[in-house]
Amino acid sequence: MEEISSLQNARVKRIVKLQRKPSFRRSEGLTVIEGAREVSRAIENGWQPSELWLCGKSSNDWKLECDFIQVSDAVFEKIAYRDSPDGILAVGPLIGRKLAELDLPENPLILVAEGVEKPGNLGALLRTADGAGADAVIVCDPATDLNNPNVIRNSIGTLFYLPVAEASSEETIAFLNGKGVRMLSAMPDAETVYTDCDLKGPLAIVVGAEDQGLSDVWRQVESAPDKFSNDWKILEVRIPMLGKNDSLNVSVSAAILMYEAVRQRES
Amino acid sequence: MEEISSLQNARVKRIVKLQRKPSFRRSEGLTVIEGAREVSRAIENGWQPSELWLCGKSSNDWKLECDFIQVSDAVFEKIAYRDSPDGILAVGPLIGRKLAELDLPENPLILVAEGVEKPGNLGALLRTADGAGADAVIVCDPATDLNNPNVIRNSIGTLFYLPVAEASSEETIAFLNGKGVRMLSAMPDAETVYTDCDLKGPLAIVVGAEDQGLSDVWRQVESAPDKFSNDWKILEVRIPMLGKNDSLNVSVSAAILMYEAVRQRES
Repeated sequence: MEEISSLQNARVKRIVKLQRKPSFRRSEGLTVIEGAREVSRAIENGWQPSELWLCGKSSNDWKLECDFIQVSDAVFEKIAYRDSPDGILAVGPLIGRKLAELDLPENPLILVAEGVEKPGNLGALLRTADGAGADAVIVCDPATDLNNPNVIRNSIGTLFYLPVAEASSEETIAFLNGKGVRMLSAMPDAETVYTDCDLKGPLAIVVGAEDQGLSDVWRQVESAPDKFSNDWKILEVRIPMLGKNDSLNVSVSAAILMYEAVRQRES
Repeated sequence: MEEISSLQNARVKRIVKLQRKPSFRRSEGLTVIEGAREVSRAIENGWQPSELWLCGKSSNDWKLECDFIQVSDAVFEKIAYRDSPDGILAVGPLIGRKLAELDLPENPLILVAEGVEKPGNLGALLRTADGAGADAVIVCDPATDLNNPNVIRNSIGTLFYLPVAEASSEETIAFLNGKGVRMLSAMPDAETVYTDCDLKGPLAIVVGAEDQGLSDVWRQVESAPDKFSNDWKILEVRIPMLGKNDSLNVSVSAAILMYEAVRQRES
C-alpha cells in the first residue's frame, strides 16, 4: 500500500482537480465518491473503484481489487470536499450512462430534468425519483454535471441506485418518442391541471431549469389536441398556485407530478 | 438623512448583530430584510420598517415614515448577509405572530413544521405552503428561527404573505384540538397510505425535523381508530417509498401531502 503525506504529491493534486473540475472528470472518465456509506452503496450497485484513499482506516475492511492509498490527516483534508470527512474516498468511473443503455420496463415512469443549475436541486430530484420508484432519470443539457460532489451528497446515495442517463434534449425527445413514452411538462400558463390527466401509461415527467423553465425544443413537440385525447406526445399541465407566489421549487414540482402518477398507477 | 462610512459605527455593529444572533433579534424584537424586492413585498403586506439603509440608492423611491441611513459600499458590504447585495436593507419588527393571532377560515388547511433545522428547508416549506394555498403555517420549537436571513431568502418572499405563527408543539396541539382541526402526520412505519384518507375537512399537515421526525408529543395525541372513522384527531400516514432509499426531503414530503389535500378539496 502506498503512503502519502505530502500535500504537493502529484496524485493528491489530481484528486483535488477531479473534485473541482467537471471538464477534468470528463476527460479522465473518473469521479470521486466520499464517505464509507456512499462508497459502500456505490459498490453494492456495481460501481468499481480503481483507487481507495484511506486516512486512519484499515484497508482490510474493503474486499476490493484496487489501489489502496493511506494518507495523513492534512492530505485527506486537502482531497476531501466535505467539511467533516470520515477518512474514506474512492476514485472510479463516472456515474451515468447513455440513453441506449437504459433498460426500460413495459410501462415506465421516467423523470427528465433539463438544464438544472443547482447541484442541490439535481440531488433532490434524484432522491425524489427514487422515492417515487422512477425506472430511469434522464439529465438533459445540465448546467451542473451529475458527478458534482454536491449532487452526489444531496442525492443521499440514490445516484448509485437509479439508472441515470445524460443526453441532449433533442436526443431525449427522439428516444422517448421512439419508445412510445408520453411527455408531461409543467408550465405555469398551461390550461390543464395535472390531476385531470391520465398518467397511467408510459410516462416521462419533464422539468426545466430553476429560472428559465424548459427550453423551446420541448414546445415544438406535438402537443395534446385536448386533455381527453390519447394522441398527445407532450402534454403541458399546470400545478395550481393558490397563494401569491408564482412558482414552486423544481424538486417540489417534480415530486407533486411524480406522486400523482404513483397515485393513479397504484389505485 | 444620516450618513455613515465608518465600519466601527455602533449602529453598523448593531445591524451585524441582528443579522447573526437570533437571541439579539428576539430581545430587540427586530428583524432585517434585504433586497428591494423583498422589502417592497414585506411593506405591501403590512410590515413597517423603522430604518431603511441605502447604498447608492435614493430615499425618494420609498414613501416611508422611517429613519433613512445612507452608507458607503464598505459599510453596506459589512451589514449585508447576501453575497451580492443590491443596496437596500430594512430593519423592522420580527415576522411571526402568536397562535391566538391566527385568523382561520371555516375549513382551514394548515402546515405545521416542528423542529426543522435547516433554514433552507424552512424557507422551502413556506414557499410550498403558499403554493398550496395554506391558510396558515405554524412553526413549532424550531431549531432555526423564522427570521434567519436564509429562511427569508429561501421563502422567496412568501414569509411576508403567509400568516405564520411560532409556538411550542404542546400549544399547537391544544390550539388545533380547540379549533377542531385534524392533524395528519407522515410516519415511515404508518399503515395507511396518505391518498386513502379524506383530507377535505379542517386539516393540519404536520412534518418533523430532517433526521428525527416528529417528537413524541405528537404520538400521544389520540390517533385514528381506523382510516374510515371520522373520530381521529391525528392520523399517521405513509408516503409510499418505492425505491431503495427510505425517506424524502421534508419540504418534498410536505408538498406531496399538501397537494393531495388540494386535489381532494378541488375535485
